[in-house]
Amino acid sequence: MAGLDPENWDALRALGHRMLDEMLDNVQNVASGPVWQPMPDTVRQGFRDAELPTQETSLTALYDQFSHSVTPYATGNRHPRFMGWVHGGGTPQGMLAELLAAGLNANLGGRDHAPIEVERMVVRWAATMLGFPETATGVLVTGSSMANFIAMITASRAVDGGLEMRSAGLAGRKLVGYAAQTAHGCIARAFDMAGLGTQALRRVPVDADFRMDMAALRQMVAADRAAGLEPFVVVGTAGTVDTGSIDPLTALADFAEAENLWFHVDGAFGAMARLSPHYAPALAGMERANSIAFDFHKWAQTPYDAGCVLVREPGRQAAAFAQSLAYLSREDRGLAAGAPWFCDLGPDLSRGFRALKVWFTLASFGTERLGGVVSQCCAVAQHLATRVQATPCLELLAPVTLNIVCFRVIAPDTDEDTLNGELVKDLQESGVAAPSTTIVHGKRAIRAAIVNHRTVEADADLMLDTLLDLAEKRLGHTLERQTA
Amino acid sequence: MAGLDPENWDALRALGHRMLDEMLDNVQNVASGPVWQPMPDTVRQGFRDAELPTQETSLTALYDQFSHSVTPYATGNRHPRFMGWVHGGGTPQGMLAELLAAGLNANLGGRDHAPIEVERMVVRWAATMLGFPETATGVLVTGSSMANFIAMITASRAVDGGLEMRSAGLAGRKLVGYAAQTAHGCIARAFDMAGLGTQALRRVPVDADFRMDMAALRQMVAADRAAGLEPFVVVGTAGTVDTGSIDPLTALADFAEAENLWFHVDGAFGAMARLSPHYAPALAGMERANSIAFDFHKWAQTPYDAGCVLVREPGRQAAAFAQSLAYLSREDRGLAAGAPWFCDLGPDLSRGFRALKVWFTLASFGTERLGGVVSQCCAVAQHLATRVQATPCLELLAPVTLNIVCFRVIAPDTDEDTLNGELVKDLQESGVAAPSTTIVHGKRAIRAAIVNHRTVEADADLMLDTLLDLAEKRLGHTLERQTA
Ligand SMILES: Cc1ncc(COP(=O)(O)O)c(C=O)c1O
Ligand SMILES: Cc1ncc(COP(=O)(O)O)c(C=O)c1O
Repeated sequence: MAGLDPENWDALRALGHRMLDEMLDNVQNVASGPVWQPMPDTVRQGFRDAELPTQETSLTALYDQFSHSVTPYATGNRHPRFMGWVHGGGTPQGMLAELLAAGLNANLGGRDHAPIEVERMVVRWAATMLGFPETATGVLVTGSSMANFIAMITASRAVDGGLEMRSAGLAGRKLVGYAAQTAHGCIARAFDMAGLGTQALRRVPVDADFRMDMAALRQMVAADRAAGLEPFVVVGTAGTVDTGSIDPLTALADFAEAENLWFHVDGAFGAMARLSPHYAPALAGMERANSIAFDFHKWAQTPYDAGCVLVREPGRQAAAFAQSLAYLSREDRGLAAGAPWFCDLGPDLSRGFRALKVWFTLASFGTERLGGVVSQCCAVAQHLATRVQATPCLELLAPVTLNIVCFRVIAPDTDEDTLNGELVKDLQESGVAAPSTTIVHGKRAIRAAIVNHRTVEADADLMLDTLLDLAEKRLGHTLERQTA
Repeated sequence: MAGLDPENWDALRALGHRMLDEMLDNVQNVASGPVWQPMPDTVRQGFRDAELPTQETSLTALYDQFSHSVTPYATGNRHPRFMGWVHGGGTPQGMLAELLAAGLNANLGGRDHAPIEVERMVVRWAATMLGFPETATGVLVTGSSMANFIAMITASRAVDGGLEMRSAGLAGRKLVGYAAQTAHGCIARAFDMAGLGTQALRRVPVDADFRMDMAALRQMVAADRAAGLEPFVVVGTAGTVDTGSIDPLTALADFAEAENLWFHVDGAFGAMARLSPHYAPALAGMERANSIAFDFHKWAQTPYDAGCVLVREPGRQAAAFAQSLAYLSREDRGLAAGAPWFCDLGPDLSRGFRALKVWFTLASFGTERLGGVVSQCCAVAQHLATRVQATPCLELLAPVTLNIVCFRVIAPDTDEDTLNGELVKDLQESGVAAPSTTIVHGKRAIRAAIVNHRTVEADADLMLDTLLDLAEKRLGHTLERQTA
């Protein structure tokens, strides 16, 4: 039989409608189920035992397996009480965009077609949204890890115009960059993958509010220059992953300008705060960056995956990534027209139609409503922080700048690190809420990241009340919940 | 208003069903429309003029815009007469998997949930499919460009166990690698991005059949060693992008073993030929590689994007990519259990549920039917080559190993390079077929890559007949179409 098209389109169509209905039911009712539940061993073993299929399986049977073995045991981030990691909640609108994108099956590496224009449009919108000029270049990628990597490559290639470093490599170069100790691990990974080495990323100390210490940065750059090294980039974070702190972006922009360094901002989730009138001022300076990395799949709630990198100066990104290949020659007309192509702006050649779900997200909600989600999440975080501070048996471990609250249960005479770690696992297994943990000031913290558009104050309350119940159960005595 | 969930779920649901129906109609009837058509200026300008939306737009209005301005002007690769680049055609089954994946909105960077088990399953299946041990590690990525990059990073880190190079970088190292002149540009780009520099990728000459010249490779490695350089990897291509040739993989495996080099295979599309009983023998030796990069979105027809990298020796990939971050600590139970995580095996932290469409593709068709698609595409290519050879005014420019046919119209006293380039654009603009061009032996070639599961011999015939008509029109005289 030639081709893979279904023999019976009507049956496939009917099944598709069932899938759509059931998935919409599932999303609509997501809050009524557990946030997360451990998968039974039989389910896990089912996947581990399954052999590479040589013959056809009906799509109905596969969907049945999906419904029973996958849907109930997913990550949980669509649920309003998922507070574990910086995960977006997704939207049904985004889901429908993905359906259409997969049906169209466009390849956005290049060539002249409408999906490319959609990506150009949303990249331009992203630039406007974050205060970059419309002429900025950019590309949608899997996530901020990749966006930050592209920015680091672009920044390093800007040192000598790109060409020499691209052909001769880094052997013999002494490039170094700077980021706060609180910067996300993907910045170090970018240095690692780029061959610069993680040591070439200098980790700048932070102040009591977890913001980069500018005096320390100044000293470190001066010392490196004196030692004959070649500082090329400074990375500020708009919304650090552990506590949500924001580096002093204006001071960083000034410093980078004075020192002729590339100023990059990692705004993985925090960049979206620019859409909230209340929080936008905290990001002042970000719009002066040479490049920004951020995600649509986090606070903008676009389904996974969708990150974005923007580069202010036209030509810089292409100088770092464009290649010329015989079979990809660019023409004046026909399907091979329309240069520059997105494959000139990053590592990917074949590229999916991520831009559609970004378009549908930005346009169907509009930036005001998306900014409203940011404000709402931050309000829930403030509410949670207020309750933590009002509860004698709890300790707030870091200031709440945006949407992340780090705190813990105080239990003198117990190993508090272990206790709080176990409590988070208890809470996750209860299905009621899913915060995560991190380390703050050397202490194991319970970390609640409020990123989901469905999360309201009552969710934070239920999380906290359940946590305290679990703590009392584990400790075998009551805790002081209220100030006298 | 809190949250982005629709106020009216019923209206959203009804619209979703309409989208699904119309997209299924569109896929079902794709062959009856043009392969590609240029987008009218008004459509293009509409995207270019659209401003960042601050307010809500109804999803109905957005869908309307999508239907009128995007659907008719897509890449064209779903059409049976798209032969332009190595693009898969997609399937409705894959589309439905994407719908479900986007609805579930799982993040596959890590943690303990069923989608992760699905990805582990399909990576294990991929290993089995390509003759790797079940213990191989791997990860789904955007495409072969990224897969090849991950393999190059992994190979380089294997030189000294990874740790030193990851922290100290490449300054002072003299690593060099080898690939044929016919290797895909993404291998050089991987060297570029990794900081090795494109010069560190030695381009080995090829024989008359566009296969790597083993004697030349031997000499180059010896010369580099003698010069104090450190050869670390040799890349063989299973299915080169310009002509579909296959490097001598068994000889490469032997050589790499003897020289203690990492043997990587770029099987972007060609690796899938292992599923065709007729073509599998041509890939012998691939299963001995240290790593393989290949795509599901090409010959396996999974919707974009879906690539995969496999690494034979357990631990190697994590040695190159794993990090430890406080907020990503791995636990014994709860949501943060289930290490190792996929974020330890590549650059991405947040990761979409690509694995679902791969699962549905492999399981719903089975490897035999997918192998049948490979055989079918190669048969069409053979048919086309036979017709080219039987047509006096056409010239076959390269042997047809798999599914790519490079040929051109012979027109003495004309600039044949220009003529053939213009003809391809004419053909694309006609809507009848979309081949591409490349350069073979210094000549501009028309390149037909048969990758779509819907393509049959009649499609190749219609492409060729239309091409000859267009050539006659352009030249103003008839061409010799039949041997006397
Ligand atoms: C500040 C920051 N940077 C980078 C990242 C990595 O982003 P992604 O998971 O999209 O790769 C994160 C993830 O949470 C983050 O919070
Ligand atoms: C041989 C080869 N390698 C690598 C690639 C790049 O793959 P991708 O477009 O999935 O990044 C291609 C693309 O056609 C290819 O043919």
